[in-house]
Amino acid sequence: MEVAQILIDGKWRKSDGEATFQASNPATGETLETSFPVSDWRDCETALAAAAAAAKELRELAPERLAAFLEAYASNIESASVAIVEAANKETGLPVSPRLKDVELPRTTNQLRQAAVAAREESWKRPTLDLERNIRSCFAPIGPVIVFGPNNFPLAFNGISGGDFAAAIAAGNPVIAKAHPLHPNTTRLLAEEARKAAAETGLPSGTVQMIYHIGNDNGLRLVSDPRVGAIGFTGSRTAGLSLKRAADDTGKPIYLEMSSINPVIFLPGALAEDEERLARELADSCLAGAGQFCTSPNLILLWNGDKAESLLASVAKTFSERAPQPLLSLAGRKQLHAGVTALADAGAQLVTGGREVEGPGYRYSNTLLRATGQQFLARNHDLQREVFGNVTMVVTIEGVEELESILELFEGNLTGAIYSAKSGVDDQLYGRIEPKLREKVGRLLNDKMPTGVAVSPAMNHGGPFPATSHPGFTSVGIPAALARFAVLQCYDGVREDRLPPVLRNTIHNSDTWRSIDGAWVKG
Amino acid sequence: MEVAQILIDGKWRKSDGEATFQASNPATGETLETSFPVSDWRDCETALAAAAAAAKELRELAPERLAAFLEAYASNIESASVAIVEAANKETGLPVSPRLKDVELPRTTNQLRQAAVAAREESWKRPTLDLERNIRSCFAPIGPVIVFGPNNFPLAFNGISGGDFAAAIAAGNPVIAKAHPLHPNTTRLLAEEARKAAAETGLPSGTVQMIYHIGNDNGLRLVSDPRVGAIGFTGSRTAGLSLKRAADDTGKPIYLEMSSINPVIFLPGALAEDEERLARELADSCLAGAGQFCTSPNLILLWNGDKAESLLASVAKTFSERAPQPLLSLAGRKQLHAGVTALADAGAQLVTGGREVEGPGYRYSNTLLRATGQQFLARNHDLQREVFGNVTMVVTIEGVEELESILELFEGNLTGAIYSAKSGVDDQLYGRIEPKLREKVGRLLNDKMPTGVAVSPAMNHGGPFPATSHPGFTSVGIPAALARFAVLQCYDGVREDRLPPVLRNTIHNSDTWRSIDGAWVKG
Repeated sequence: MEVAQILIDGKWRKSDGEATFQASNPATGETLETSFPVSDWRDCETALAAAAAAAKELRELAPERLAAFLEAYASNIESASVAIVEAANKETGLPVSPRLKDVELPRTTNQLRQAAVAAREESWKRPTLDLERNIRSCFAPIGPVIVFGPNNFPLAFNGISGGDFAAAIAAGNPVIAKAHPLHPNTTRLLAEEARKAAAETGLPSGTVQMIYHIGNDNGLRLVSDPRVGAIGFTGSRTAGLSLKRAADDTGKPIYLEMSSINPVIFLPGALAEDEERLARELADSCLAGAGQFCTSPNLILLWNGDKAESLLASVAKTFSERAPQPLLSLAGRKQLHAGVTALADAGAQLVTGGREVEGPGYRYSNTLLRATGQQFLARNHDLQREVFGNVTMVVTIEGVEELESILELFEGNLTGAIYSAKSGVDDQLYGRIEPKLREKVGRLLNDKMPTGVAVSPAMNHGGPFPATSHPGFTSVGIPAALARFAVLQCYDGVREDRLPPVLRNTIHNSDTWRSIDGAWVKG
Repeated sequence: MEVAQILIDGKWRKSDGEATFQASNPATGETLETSFPVSDWRDCETALAAAAAAAKELRELAPERLAAFLEAYASNIESASVAIVEAANKETGLPVSPRLKDVELPRTTNQLRQAAVAAREESWKRPTLDLERNIRSCFAPIGPVIVFGPNNFPLAFNGISGGDFAAAIAAGNPVIAKAHPLHPNTTRLLAEEARKAAAETGLPSGTVQMIYHIGNDNGLRLVSDPRVGAIGFTGSRTAGLSLKRAADDTGKPIYLEMSSINPVIFLPGALAEDEERLARELADSCLAGAGQFCTSPNLILLWNGDKAESLLASVAKTFSERAPQPLLSLAGRKQLHAGVTALADAGAQLVTGGREVEGPGYRYSNTLLRATGQQFLARNHDLQREVFGNVTMVVTIEGVEELESILELFEGNLTGAIYSAKSGVDDQLYGRIEPKLREKVGRLLNDKMPTGVAVSPAMNHGGPFPATSHPGFTSVGIPAALARFAVLQCYDGVREDRLPPVLRNTIHNSDTWRSIDGAWVKG
């Protein structure tokens, strides 16, 4: 049987690995036709050598060339969008429309184009000039970046086309993308558009490379290879922490986005004012993408009482009525069920759902659990477990002191949301709990659900450990996301004609913001 | 015998630890009088609890209050400067003048005052506003910071008064300083001035705390405690890597400055033009502070030939004529001798020095070694060992290809310098080797020695692993150094009156630079 080829050093070639795997269609459970290789170390070695060579060339390349590539790639994706979306739909079960075609694909090309603008503008380099002392510094490429994409966004977070990829390239680095093995064919199609764009715009051949799958040992070896500059990873906490240790031990910056239960707090006044809207927004957010979003609200906190019961009943009704969407994999469904069982074992009560759903495909009933604040306090470790999928737990609390105690026990999260009354009746409560929630989350929301992650310069898709591996960086938002893939380089007493163009007295790029003797100036 | 007290939660108190230690005078070898406690975990626990409480209060404090503290502290240090300098001289053997009194102490107070300006200005928070989407973000305090100061700068890098301390406080964090056990009394005197300044300016009692010494196990436990926000460390690679693993495993950002041999390259034209000046600058830089600077040039590369021999002879003459300054400790002298022996074992030839010097105090003869480029290539791991002290090795090379091969093998360094001819004859060589050196160093210098580290906003006192633990951060230079002790916090759809002042539409601080819809504006 024919086995798909990997993209190495600008060419499609046969993998040296002998093992293969096939993906399946989560909506039907059928195994998909194509076989994909599991790369062994020889593939990694070849890719690393090509990436290291490309990194040297890229350091000397005009930023315009990176921008041209990113834009050509975005256009190529659009030209090939029908096939790409179809492949993604087959491999993930996510709806073609609106999700893949109208939301995720435009988001992907938008990110690539924003990254092109950032590369061209060069402000992300934060050029800093101390003219009197002739000391100048700026950010520069860190070297080959390994990107491990997650299972849940086959386009917008794909290792070969997503936010990490766009940021790493815009910052001047080659990328070795590891496809997620649940959507290899989607990744293959994207990689071909990337390859073409790189060829069209004349980038070094090792700039964009892609393998489908590797064993754990080779993954650890890959992230700690001396030729690697940094690593971007989105996925499970177990895999992330294992890669983190290997990277940390060899001094490689590794940016992980691992897990988050995204607490949402409904203050009493908000619930009183607008229960119906809250119930609707909550259910929609929880069930979007079958709950397989990193920002899916897994934990809802609200005051015990009639209003809570009525909201619970309303959400439970929606959960039970709405047809469960397919989960991304059979293994994911098993893990989800194990997670629900673990929550129940820790004392959470099942309100609705809690069982695998008969085919076609990998579906699980939309699941709502509940627990009390006291239960949460007693078993906080077990009850703040991330269960990835269409599962949400409501915790009913007895008052603000209890809520404060709960917030103190939270692990780091990507997001935290507080709904409060428009009338102002919740403002005092808000003031008390906000500082405690603020500390534990990367993004704090008011009166909205966390599942939308805008690609904004002010976005933080990050947060305290273990949501990510470093609370100072974001993986979404341009140009901020580029900072992860950069090193700070200082020039002390260096003759002007030897400085990088962004650090010279006169700059030709009139769009670049620079900090000169303490003031930000443009051009 | 009386044992010095530790500074915990705003008060001097007896340590719970039972072990004690004494410092000694490196210039004479005499043991100094005062006994200092080795803290056990109970001291750490008390300090952590107080720091955690202070961190909560500091988050709500006006930046002006942090600035007032930093300025009061700087003034207090000046008022107590005679005693502080005398203590530092006794404990380190470093000359009172110019080093301690005229250079290091003013640098210390200057850093504190620059940090005050940064705290007040608030631009370090990088407020970023996306007005249309109402998404806003800024940097905020990370929480209690543990600072481990090094042995070689008793004031300017002291855990209780140096760059890490100033940056952590200016970013709004409490600090638990671990004194370097070679200068506990200096640290005690500084801590008293900090305590007074904190009391005078009404900072939370747990903002500034200090212990003298802890066992390794407690150090590892301290850096991985859940209450800790981040760690700053300057010291040996062994200790640094051990702390790094503990911090990494618990997801704590740890900023280490560990080791660097600071290569200096003399291109042939520069040597031909100005041999005498180069020899003088090199010897002065190597022997400054008995070579006990993190940026001391330990490795000199130059073309084999008459000029190299003549420079070597000249430097060797200065090395042998100039009286060796005291090293900081007896243990340091042993390590230095072990390092020289290891270099010799790896094939380096001793030109001058290489032996312990009879008292008083801990001295070692100024030591110059030499090796060939071929030797370096064959034993690069052994020959790029950092030997901390007045030891320098010259490597004579046969040509640019050999030099390029050597540069490829370099580990990460803080600095790298290239001297080239004013006439331009070296420019082609420069162009070939600069990219290879640039990649390996945080700061690239032209025609000057690396031992001066200006406190400039454009400074990078950092570099690739293992010089530091993250190549994107600097420990010297304000405001950049503050970024290490901050988390990125995003506000998504948050009502305006609930935003931090720096993120509101109208800002009262007219000095703050903000990025609003992509443009940097002030006030």
